[in-house]
Amino acid sequence: MPLTLIKGGRIVTAVDDYTADILIRDGQIETIGRDLAAESADVHDATGLLVFPGGIDVHTHMEGPQGPAMNCDTYESGTIAAAFGGTTTIVDFAYQSKGDSAKKTLDDRVALADPQVCIDYSFHLILVDVNRAVLAELPDVINHEGVSSFKMYMAYPDILMVDDAAIFRTMRTVGHHGGMVNLHAENGQVIQVLIEEALEQGNTAPKAHLLTRPRLMEAEATHRAIRIAELAEVPVYIVHLSAPEALESVVEARDRGLPAFAETCPHYLFLDDSQYDHPGFESAKYVMTPPLRSHHCHQALWRGLRFDDLQIVATDHCPFCINERTMGLKYSKQLGQDNFNQIPNGAPGVETRLVLLYDGGVRSGKISLNRFVQLTSTAPAKMFGLFPRKGAIAIGSDADLVLFDPNKTQILSAQTHHSNVDYSLFEGREVTGSVEKVFLRGELIVEGTQWLGRSGMGQFQKRGASGRIL
Amino acid sequence: MPLTLIKGGRIVTAVDDYTADILIRDGQIETIGRDLAAESADVHDATGLLVFPGGIDVHTHMEGPQGPAMNCDTYESGTIAAAFGGTTTIVDFAYQSKGDSAKKTLDDRVALADPQVCIDYSFHLILVDVNRAVLAELPDVINHEGVSSFKMYMAYPDILMVDDAAIFRTMRTVGHHGGMVNLHAENGQVIQVLIEEALEQGNTAPKAHLLTRPRLMEAEATHRAIRIAELAEVPVYIVHLSAPEALESVVEARDRGLPAFAETCPHYLFLDDSQYDHPGFESAKYVMTPPLRSHHCHQALWRGLRFDDLQIVATDHCPFCINERTMGLKYSKQLGQDNFNQIPNGAPGVETRLVLLYDGGVRSGKISLNRFVQLTSTAPAKMFGLFPRKGAIAIGSDADLVLFDPNKTQILSAQTHHSNVDYSLFEGREVTGSVEKVFLRGELIVEGTQWLGRSGMGQFQKRGASGRIL
Amino acid sequence: MPLTLIKGGRIVTAVDDYTADILIRDGQIETIGRDLAAESADVHDATGLLVFPGGIDVHTHMEGPQGPAMNCDTYESGTIAAAFGGTTTIVDFAYQSKGDSAKKTLDDRVALADPQVCIDYSFHLILVDVNRAVLAELPDVINHEGVSSFKMYMAYPDILMVDDAAIFRTMRTVGHHGGMVNLHAENGQVIQVLIEEALEQGNTAPKAHLLTRPRLMEAEATHRAIRIAELAEVPVYIVHLSAPEALESVVEARDRGLPAFAETCPHYLFLDDSQYDHPGFESAKYVMTPPLRSHHCHQALWRGLRFDDLQIVATDHCPFCINERTMGLKYSKQLGQDNFNQIPNGAPGVETRLVLLYDGGVRSGKISLNRFVQLTSTAPAKMFGLFPRKGAIAIGSDADLVLFDPNKTQILSAQTHHSNVDYSLFEGREVTGSVEKVFLRGELIVEGTQWLGRSGMGQFQKRGASGRIL
Amino acid sequence: MPLTLIKGGRIVTAVDDYTADILIRDGQIETIGRDLAAESADVHDATGLLVFPGGIDVHTHMEGPQGPAMNCDTYESGTIAAAFGGTTTIVDFAYQSKGDSAKKTLDDRVALADPQVCIDYSFHLILVDVNRAVLAELPDVINHEGVSSFKMYMAYPDILMVDDAAIFRTMRTVGHHGGMVNLHAENGQVIQVLIEEALEQGNTAPKAHLLTRPRLMEAEATHRAIRIAELAEVPVYIVHLSAPEALESVVEARDRGLPAFAETCPHYLFLDDSQYDHPGFESAKYVMTPPLRSHHCHQALWRGLRFDDLQIVATDHCPFCINERTMGLKYSKQLGQDNFNQIPNGAPGVETRLVLLYDGGVRSGKISLNRFVQLTSTAPAKMFGLFPRKGAIAIGSDADLVLFDPNKTQILSAQTHHSNVDYSLFEGREVTGSVEKVFLRGELIVEGTQWLGRSGMGQFQKRGASGRIL
Repeated sequence: MPLTLIKGGRIVTAVDDYTADILIRDGQIETIGRDLAAESADVHDATGLLVFPGGIDVHTHMEGPQGPAMNCDTYESGTIAAAFGGTTTIVDFAYQSKGDSAKKTLDDRVALADPQVCIDYSFHLILVDVNRAVLAELPDVINHEGVSSFKMYMAYPDILMVDDAAIFRTMRTVGHHGGMVNLHAENGQVIQVLIEEALEQGNTAPKAHLLTRPRLMEAEATHRAIRIAELAEVPVYIVHLSAPEALESVVEARDRGLPAFAETCPHYLFLDDSQYDHPGFESAKYVMTPPLRSHHCHQALWRGLRFDDLQIVATDHCPFCINERTMGLKYSKQLGQDNFNQIPNGAPGVETRLVLLYDGGVRSGKISLNRFVQLTSTAPAKMFGLFPRKGAIAIGSDADLVLFDPNKTQILSAQTHHSNVDYSLFEGREVTGSVEKVFLRGELIVEGTQWLGRSGMGQFQKRGASGRIL
Repeated sequence: MPLTLIKGGRIVTAVDDYTADILIRDGQIETIGRDLAAESADVHDATGLLVFPGGIDVHTHMEGPQGPAMNCDTYESGTIAAAFGGTTTIVDFAYQSKGDSAKKTLDDRVALADPQVCIDYSFHLILVDVNRAVLAELPDVINHEGVSSFKMYMAYPDILMVDDAAIFRTMRTVGHHGGMVNLHAENGQVIQVLIEEALEQGNTAPKAHLLTRPRLMEAEATHRAIRIAELAEVPVYIVHLSAPEALESVVEARDRGLPAFAETCPHYLFLDDSQYDHPGFESAKYVMTPPLRSHHCHQALWRGLRFDDLQIVATDHCPFCINERTMGLKYSKQLGQDNFNQIPNGAPGVETRLVLLYDGGVRSGKISLNRFVQLTSTAPAKMFGLFPRKGAIAIGSDADLVLFDPNKTQILSAQTHHSNVDYSLFEGREVTGSVEKVFLRGELIVEGTQWLGRSGMGQFQKRGASGRIL
Repeated sequence: MPLTLIKGGRIVTAVDDYTADILIRDGQIETIGRDLAAESADVHDATGLLVFPGGIDVHTHMEGPQGPAMNCDTYESGTIAAAFGGTTTIVDFAYQSKGDSAKKTLDDRVALADPQVCIDYSFHLILVDVNRAVLAELPDVINHEGVSSFKMYMAYPDILMVDDAAIFRTMRTVGHHGGMVNLHAENGQVIQVLIEEALEQGNTAPKAHLLTRPRLMEAEATHRAIRIAELAEVPVYIVHLSAPEALESVVEARDRGLPAFAETCPHYLFLDDSQYDHPGFESAKYVMTPPLRSHHCHQALWRGLRFDDLQIVATDHCPFCINERTMGLKYSKQLGQDNFNQIPNGAPGVETRLVLLYDGGVRSGKISLNRFVQLTSTAPAKMFGLFPRKGAIAIGSDADLVLFDPNKTQILSAQTHHSNVDYSLFEGREVTGSVEKVFLRGELIVEGTQWLGRSGMGQFQKRGASGRIL
Repeated sequence: MPLTLIKGGRIVTAVDDYTADILIRDGQIETIGRDLAAESADVHDATGLLVFPGGIDVHTHMEGPQGPAMNCDTYESGTIAAAFGGTTTIVDFAYQSKGDSAKKTLDDRVALADPQVCIDYSFHLILVDVNRAVLAELPDVINHEGVSSFKMYMAYPDILMVDDAAIFRTMRTVGHHGGMVNLHAENGQVIQVLIEEALEQGNTAPKAHLLTRPRLMEAEATHRAIRIAELAEVPVYIVHLSAPEALESVVEARDRGLPAFAETCPHYLFLDDSQYDHPGFESAKYVMTPPLRSHHCHQALWRGLRFDDLQIVATDHCPFCINERTMGLKYSKQLGQDNFNQIPNGAPGVETRLVLLYDGGVRSGKISLNRFVQLTSTAPAKMFGLFPRKGAIAIGSDADLVLFDPNKTQILSAQTHHSNVDYSLFEGREVTGSVEKVFLRGELIVEGTQWLGRSGMGQFQKRGASGRIL
């Protein structure tokens, strides 16, 4: 493999910010310095560009089942989209089916993903059937399979929800072995009552999704998750936190010294619940869980990002087409045309994370450039055991690099994005900042609008311990 | 009925404190004043005595089923014990069985209790089977049956525990009609895991009861109950609060203006978890739920009582004999001789509430005399819709009165108490303060050690709205 | 003195609520009961009326000096106004001058007030010159003079402000002897900077009063006062609390078990800072300290009143005429015509406290009727050592009683009020509720619009310990 | 200047951790990489060693006046000691005298220090006389002199203390121009009362220093400083925070999104108030302000360090000899032999910061190695405008580097340290970890026990904005 040399970029890490050249050999960063030269290297001029460590998106759903529905992105299409967005590693999900072992769940998922993925990847293991046999597997899953994070749902009764006993048992087991539990924190039972009530009242439009998932029930479950984790002595990670009231529980825990962590997503930072007032079925585009919240909530989330009470920005990329014709009913929001509760939950986002956070966070003065890198790459890597291979621009780290033009503007649109999904949450939004080149382990895979990568080139990443980043 | 005149007592209410005579006619207080005279009245000299409104104990279990066990006090024995302790009204429990309606549950319980009770009484309705039919009954139960409080268990899975959906449905229904939900707040599922684990490890002694019911899980459930109540817009009442961490959730809610209330019990104020270190089965006497906590917890509870973050002191009188021979295995802690988890949960207390709180609270300077009355009589009456008939020394109120000697000392003992139970939590404790005479609706029912009342003389009290006392 | 009999009123205390007759002998309540009769008694029919214990206003400034200005109410005019408003006791202020002893300060003030006062009265002693001699007097002042509360200013540098050393010294001394310190809690130094700045910028209009006294500086001083009191181990009482941020410090202290107390005033509950937008000098009417706050602040204050984090509603009646001609420049806001900082600070209120709190608090459902009595009479009496002589409708208490028509409407206006002041903060406001008759120690002093009292009939009240009401 | 090459060290930054070589040219880091080679470079083998960015100690007092006393370290001796401890930059103090301009204060101090200093340096400007002229200078001081931090004392009345008006004025001015205010946060007035009282009671021993400076008064002043800063819209930095109650105010502010920061010192982490129980004058060694606190306080400080509620560990190196003979009375604690209040306040520490924090923080598992670097170098650099010149191991940064042996043990002692002071707070303590080599801008100045630097080689650092690091 030839050497690669990136010249003159402004290198930004979670803490540093300086101008230098980067020399890459065998997929890793070999040298960083001034005026580097290397014969026969591929040279890329990064003058005027920012150089970030490749984005790490720790919350994506590619080819994920959701009852009768299926995400419209394959591991191939989804990871190409990710790459165009400056993300070089995803941590996606392996979905346990009832009766399946942890090992089988992971093996099957690797078999599905591995031939397709275009960027590096790992899985969180979603547990829905916690029994003695599965619990007994987990130490090995963590320490030999390299999967140290386990997601459980406190929502969606009868489908994904597990009870507090299962959560506690899992927490105790994984806590002792370097694992962490990720929780979808909403009180599923209370929400189910609200849903049934809404349906009985003939309230079937997408907006009912908002009305039946109140912030208080996200706050309740967040608190519960943290308290159970406190007893179990395990780190806990709240996914897609959206409600200030839930954030307060995370803050309270951290103020007491507990290893409680949380991520939020760009749509909770940049969109609000006015999106549920569109006429017709348009609002179905915004049916993700938790729903978009009031614009009054934004400020608290930004404060959390700034003060490290929120550690990560992930996307919860979970795409379904808005039109049935695009890919067929199975891949479409139209499954819930007559009943908001059957709208597949989720929205796209994997391609727009960096540019949105740069434009709306860094340029608007809400977060610093270092914090931007921390939130999108370094903290995810450290939180989920990928560091220092990933998440760093440092000697010996994988040369996953993004060359980013801080001044180029673009208009976000489904017309130009690379996901299979047929709409964008941010259609028509003009943003400043643009991913110009993306390197995966030293290979140039994105150059402007050109895709230079290969399906299957992504590698499964065995991860170290999760949640040990204090 | 003849007139009764109580002369020269120091009358103490939740707010006032003065010396006067009380004239009683037809069971009610007719006149309060100086130098009252009435021909042909029964005259009682109360000089040097305190006159309290009769105690109201809103948490007792008489003849209550508990799986294979049964409380060892009947409505007769239990209410006699209560009367000797200065309590003239209890709010006991009607226990729904699966499939039973609310109406049947109440009717059956009234039929059992009414011929026996020696003091006035009502029930909280314990719901274990919340379905549409039962929910539909509740407005009528509140407004016509006069039962405005409903108890649900977040603990004891597979026995009493209901899920959050049932709690939420009940809360929404009763909240709109003047009702309140009382919660036994412990996370039953997590505790069940700890119990199973303890048993697997051969940890069967009574102390395991303490170890498997951590304060954090009381705190978790307390927070959850309050959050769900906040969404349902209903007052919520936490029974037998024992953990400072749980109290913090109540405080936080009240600081935000929510109608969240809680009671504690004398044993949480005066005893601690060192009682689980007795050899043999002795510690089974202290197996109540929640268990006794560390003595470090006392201070926070007293602060709560002083600042009205805890509104009521009740007993959770739930007696089982320590010896099998006393009344038979069914009524005995011995059911759990080999397995702490089968020890019937509960302990006696109905007879010692006032004297303990007077001695350890008022005399020790922790609470004022007015606050003592508030906690033991007036707040319970207001909280549960018995006021102003009960809980007051005021014109027109029932003449439920206690003449209390503030200086007489006594030694608490099972030898001298009136409950059927064969032990006392406070055996041998010397306390200052003594119930001298007790009047129920003007009738003298206790005079020193003499019982003057009659079985069945207690009257069922239709209650008004619960939880509207802010 | 003849007997007085009040028939058939609905008697409301801080805890009770019942219908009965009240018999008064020698100025005290002798009997309360049904169908009382007394030969030769003056009989007042109270059917359909509420009977309250006489209001106690613990924050008034009659004939008070304020730099070159003087309050426009004398002890005579001010106490007549108070009486018409249902207040039968005031705790006004004795103002220490530099160099004066505490004893002289009190004696002089009693000499001024005693011949004039029409209702009962006491003083808080304002200390501005805390030296060894004065500190040495305080135990005697508390225990023999019956003045157990001492007010100090954290605002108004060079005039009234004392430093933290003086506050701490005073707190330590009075704390050991049953006294309490009342604080005007604003950071006077920072505010002074803002005032100077405003004046330099030519910002002289009344609205500058609002802009130069930010809520944060009230919060700061409140926190400071409580912390110093915590160290000194003394109860502390924050006067005229207006800012939610200040209330938070009180709440935090109470949640930790400290004897921290606070009052608010009707104008902070019913008016807001939009009053500073009047044209011309009109807004000077609202120049009191602290200034009126945003209407967003009201909710937090009401929550505080409901949950006993605010214990008292007083008026801070501190009247100055708006027109110079009414009584002369000295008594007038016109002193600050050209400079907001020279507008005498203060506003009238002594006559409208009960009716405003009844109309806007009880009738609007924000507080209960019992709480209304607690806030306006019983808590002030207990807080400042006047109980049970005052603040109660109980046998042996002074027969200070208000007969209140809960249904009669009236329009508040300077036209009809009895203060010397020439404007009302609530001009033209229609309220429901009306003081019909007022008895001071059994004597009818107000009957509708008729004044039946006599100047000098008010008696100085030696008070017991302050701040011992937990 | 020759090239310098550091080979094979484990490079640790605030975020990264990897093994590489560092090539230094002209005092700056030119290249970082694997297998670097450079002809004619001085080569240092760092195999097995950690490589840190040079420590930055933002709180030292060299040659500082303290009433009649003077610190016993000169800029020369003190900076040599610092260098041996792995610190390559200090931010010391320029002490304004009454009447002096800011410019004169700085110029005089630079003139004193510059010929002596052996490492790089800057000053915080201590303001004691805040008048219009001085305030007018501050924008220029910040933007042209490169001094962006201003220290003020809330303690030491009549000596250093400024009032809240001065603090507020300064905050407003510097906040608008990129400056920050550092506060010694203790309520000086209340403490003065306690001191006077102690002295009156004949309580003159060193322990009285502890007893007269309660944690509550540190908490009070911390809260006050933050509230005033909130109003002034300026970042605020609390120096030498020692009390958990003070930390709570910082936490509360940060939870609300305010730019409030704080440092603590090694002695507050590793020593406790039992040191005041030594017989005789021995305890005078520990008379620094704030005093050492209870060992119960340690845990809260460590939590703060871990969760970034405390951002910096500095030393408050402020040495005075314990023996008069060492350097003379003026430089000695003996000034307070008869009166604790005349003991010069302060203790040494500049040489032991890194090794103590490594041994007691990193090795004990309380903080990570990255966090260690953040606390000792990177955060100080960013907080006080020295970054990225200082505080980083990155291309273009000054080659201030520490080679640290993580396994070598040493015994701390005044026998071996380099400060002029004649005692050590940690005499006899064995620690693991040792500074082996120290480079200042590429020059080797410390090698083991050898001093290779030169007096006057340190350079004054013009700093950028302070307190803008969120």
